[in-house]
Amino acid sequence: MRTFKLTLAYDGAGLVGWQRQANGTSIQGLLEDALGLLEGRHVDVAGAGRTDAGVHALGQVASVRLEREISAEGLLRALNAHLPPSVRVVRAEVAADAFHARFDARAKTYRYRIWTGDVLSPFARGFAWHVPVPLDRAAMDEAARRLEGWHDFAAFQTIGTETATTRRRVLSSRVASAGDAEGLDPDALVVYEVTGEGFLRHMVRAIAGTLVDVGRGRHPASWVDDVLASRDRGQAGRTAPAEGLFLVRVDYAPDDDPDVPAR
Amino acid sequence: MRTFKLTLAYDGAGLVGWQRQANGTSIQGLLEDALGLLEGRHVDVAGAGRTDAGVHALGQVASVRLEREISAEGLLRALNAHLPPSVRVVRAEVAADAFHARFDARAKTYRYRIWTGDVLSPFARGFAWHVPVPLDRAAMDEAARRLEGWHDFAAFQTIGTETATTRRRVLSSRVASAGDAEGLDPDALVVYEVTGEGFLRHMVRAIAGTLVDVGRGRHPASWVDDVLASRDRGQAGRTAPAEGLFLVRVDYAPDDDPDVPAR
Repeated sequence: MRTFKLTLAYDGAGLVGWQRQANGTSIQGLLEDALGLLEGRHVDVAGAGRTDAGVHALGQVASVRLEREISAEGLLRALNAHLPPSVRVVRAEVAADAFHARFDARAKTYRYRIWTGDVLSPFARGFAWHVPVPLDRAAMDEAARRLEGWHDFAAFQTIGTETATTRRRVLSSRVASAGDAEGLDPDALVVYEVTGEGFLRHMVRAIAGTLVDVGRGRHPASWVDDVLASRDRGQAGRTAPAEGLFLVRVDYAPDDDPDVPAR
Repeated sequence: MRTFKLTLAYDGAGLVGWQRQANGTSIQGLLEDALGLLEGRHVDVAGAGRTDAGVHALGQVASVRLEREISAEGLLRALNAHLPPSVRVVRAEVAADAFHARFDARAKTYRYRIWTGDVLSPFARGFAWHVPVPLDRAAMDEAARRLEGWHDFAAFQTIGTETATTRRRVLSSRVASAGDAEGLDPDALVVYEVTGEGFLRHMVRAIAGTLVDVGRGRHPASWVDDVLASRDRGQAGRTAPAEGLFLVRVDYAPDDDPDVPAR
């Protein structure tokens, strides 16, 4: 048995999210089905982040243990031959035997894209939240930075979720302007990027909704301190739509890095 | 009657191209149908470039003469309410009475995107030609620059097309590397951008196919001189697929610029 680390990119449109479900197509299900054909038995695939329906990924990480003798390169090619073009294995590596994509993850980075132009570009459609009003980016960035550090994020968690603690450590939380790739409207995109050791369910989308409230001038940047202190989901902004969210990167400790020769 | 200049962006996937046809959805047809509802009669819309099926636009320009009293802003909103989200009017302006999007165009700029990474990003899918081999970008750029100036482009024209002359003036023809918008593979994209006073049918796509042959090392950059001289379509490279092509911009003389007060 060898453990593989897979890095995945996917367009989440039309998918029910990472986790296998009774109905609908999940990324985990697609991978497990493709790997099951390869192994001739059911295999479990662990994902670093359980992205929701419609959420995209640039660098989701999954781990799987396989009996079959196959090179990392061969595994990448075999999986991409089976997966739909909206889901791609962009990298495959042999990992340390005990490597687990979720338990070993040290940090995850998410990006949330907001299109502020009056007219939504056909090329941003499905990959951004359309908020066609001027947003105060400096105020949004100031609010975003107030979330850095250890905080109780209960106010940014979907109600009814069971979790041992709602305290999480956010390593970086920033808002920037970005040009769109096509140069159609170089000032239309507002991008929120957050790196954290762990996230609560819908946390990034609740933060994005809250930052947009600040950007619209409904609240000052310091309001996010009050929202955090309230521990009340009703105080924060709305949950921003899934289509603007991207899981960008998952970081692991150097020990787990498959580029280091296996022990 | 007033003349309006419309700037359009569209995702060409699933469309039969600019020009109205008996079967399938065209951009011209969508615009004429939407404007027909507004005017209560059939209206003709002229487009600067007749983009083919599957070709995208960031800045196609169309002109139309309307009887109805409507502001440019009102026209933009009314059209976008009728058009599918894959086709957007990004700008509407009142133009000089005689303005005609095609006859008055002084230059057009096209962009052709080539994805050279082994694995095609789900986000480049449909918006680039996937050529998963290393390409010599310097050689491609040198070949591209040899097309600048006045040349007979007969070798880069779809056979059987009727046109008075196959001589065209190319103002700029360059190849550059580009990062993908998502940062998934910052070195995967090769972008060809060409500005010319006029183009023959399939000319940009035939040039893109030819430049890829140079990039793969099948021919030296100077080969494009031989291809031009041959005036033989069979000498040039293949016609690159439509999905990599974008009509980026159409330029008009300052006199036709609607930002200048109408005479």
